Amino acid sequence: MQDLSRLCIHTATTKPWSIEIAVEQYARANVAGITVWRDALTGRNPATVGRAIRDAGLEVVSLCRGGFFPSVDADARARAQADNLRAVEEAEALGAPLIVLVCGADPAQSLDDSRAQIIEGIRAVAGRAQDAGVRLAIEPLHPMYADAKSAVNTMQSANDMCDAIQLPNVGVAVDVYHIWWDPGAFDQIARCGTAGRLFAFHVCDWRVPTRDLLLDRGLMGEGCIDIPRFRSAVEKAGFSGFNEVEIFSTDYWSGDQSAYLQRIIEAYRQHV
Amino acid sequence: MQDLSRLCIHTATTKPWSIEIAVEQYARANVAGITVWRDALTGRNPATVGRAIRDAGLEVVSLCRGGFFPSVDADARARAQADNLRAVEEAEALGAPLIVLVCGADPAQSLDDSRAQIIEGIRAVAGRAQDAGVRLAIEPLHPMYADAKSAVNTMQSANDMCDAIQLPNVGVAVDVYHIWWDPGAFDQIARCGTAGRLFAFHVCDWRVPTRDLLLDRGLMGEGCIDIPRFRSAVEKAGFSGFNEVEIFSTDYWSGDQSAYLQRIIEAYRQHV
Repeated sequence: MQDLSRLCIHTATTKPWSIEIAVEQYARANVAGITVWRDALTGRNPATVGRAIRDAGLEVVSLCRGGFFPSVDADARARAQADNLRAVEEAEALGAPLIVLVCGADPAQSLDDSRAQIIEGIRAVAGRAQDAGVRLAIEPLHPMYADAKSAVNTMQSANDMCDAIQLPNVGVAVDVYHIWWDPGAFDQIARCGTAGRLFAFHVCDWRVPTRDLLLDRGLMGEGCIDIPRFRSAVEKAGFSGFNEVEIFSTDYWSGDQSAYLQRIIEAYRQHV
Repeated sequence: MQDLSRLCIHTATTKPWSIEIAVEQYARANVAGITVWRDALTGRNPATVGRAIRDAGLEVVSLCRGGFFPSVDADARARAQADNLRAVEEAEALGAPLIVLVCGADPAQSLDDSRAQIIEGIRAVAGRAQDAGVRLAIEPLHPMYADAKSAVNTMQSANDMCDAIQLPNVGVAVDVYHIWWDPGAFDQIARCGTAGRLFAFHVCDWRVPTRDLLLDRGLMGEGCIDIPRFRSAVEKAGFSGFNEVEIFSTDYWSGDQSAYLQRIIEAYRQHV
């Protein structure tokens, strides 16, 4: 997409940069939005960071990430809920209208149990989030993360969970990296749109071969995902928000981040 | 399962062993069945190998693997079909009643196109296989292999493909490693049974963390898969064949294979 007015970048994408440098560099490059990872806020006042972001002309798109609700240990579940309530406070102070949820999974119990605990966890924080004007987006994660990162691994599972929760501020974040392989993904994106719960859209690419389960995501156009088809599908489903670039890559993190930012923008223009 | 009468091991599980050594060692350890990988037959006459296996008191459970049908290149697709016809000849000579299909995918085209070419490829070889008394099992592969190994990534997708193909000798191989994360897996195993197409059952475990996308499978009990629940589900669906141990692991391949075989048997007794 040539127009950058809907381009958002995650702070984790340019992880070597502090959030202050990221904000300055994104703004100078005409990036329009920023999604803030919580680790980028360490030692900072979220309200101050939020003001600095807006002063730089950027929009805060979301806070990443809440979630990680399940555990076999009830105390750990209580701590996770408390941490998610803190995330809601941070989002409110930062001025982020959305928290992305990496829902969690505990390999010491069944996925069914983890899913039930995710629903319980989301219900426990959604009311406070609603009061703060913050929405929560369940992000289905690729099935290779079902062991310890998320028991929600398809768009269908995320939609089913939203149906079970039935709260207006709980929806779904669509990330092409996690769902591109799923023959049911397009129908489920449409379902998500019909239900008015398509809250976010994340892009990157699946490298062939992928050398690491976590930190080998590709720039858009470097892999095998048909990103324009997914962008078209979410737009057809009514989504008009930001296209968020979220790339975890030891390769890219080890290089010059300014040059990398230019490559991100070029890849966005050509392959999103 | 204490009883070893349904224990089968894949030659790829003990890859450092030649097939001759594997047969001797498996038989001595009271393993009942063997699934032969095609690379283990290199330079050998499949009929001779098949006789040696039976003489040792083992049953040939299947030949691994056919498939890899899709390609953007029509010549490559024709070569793939020819190679699958050779696999049918090898299975017939070996006395293997089943070929497991890793169906393939070409990242240079859409998954829809790859799926259509898989159907075309299976149809092109199924008649010859039927004449040879050989069944073909579509093995859904974990979605992390959707780029280049298989465009069939769920039990539902495998069942849908069998419905499209509608041939009595085309069914499904269930491997817990690939489908354990899927909330729809149990319903689809039941559907598979009802259709009389549950042809094989493979076990190993998903290590937490998994350090490599291909070669870090765990012994049963080392990971987070509820294998007995899956065994119970396939048996409820009418399956009474072998429980096949298929583990790719650089760690295990680098150690003493005799000790490893004992660990496999112990893990089978305790965790299958």
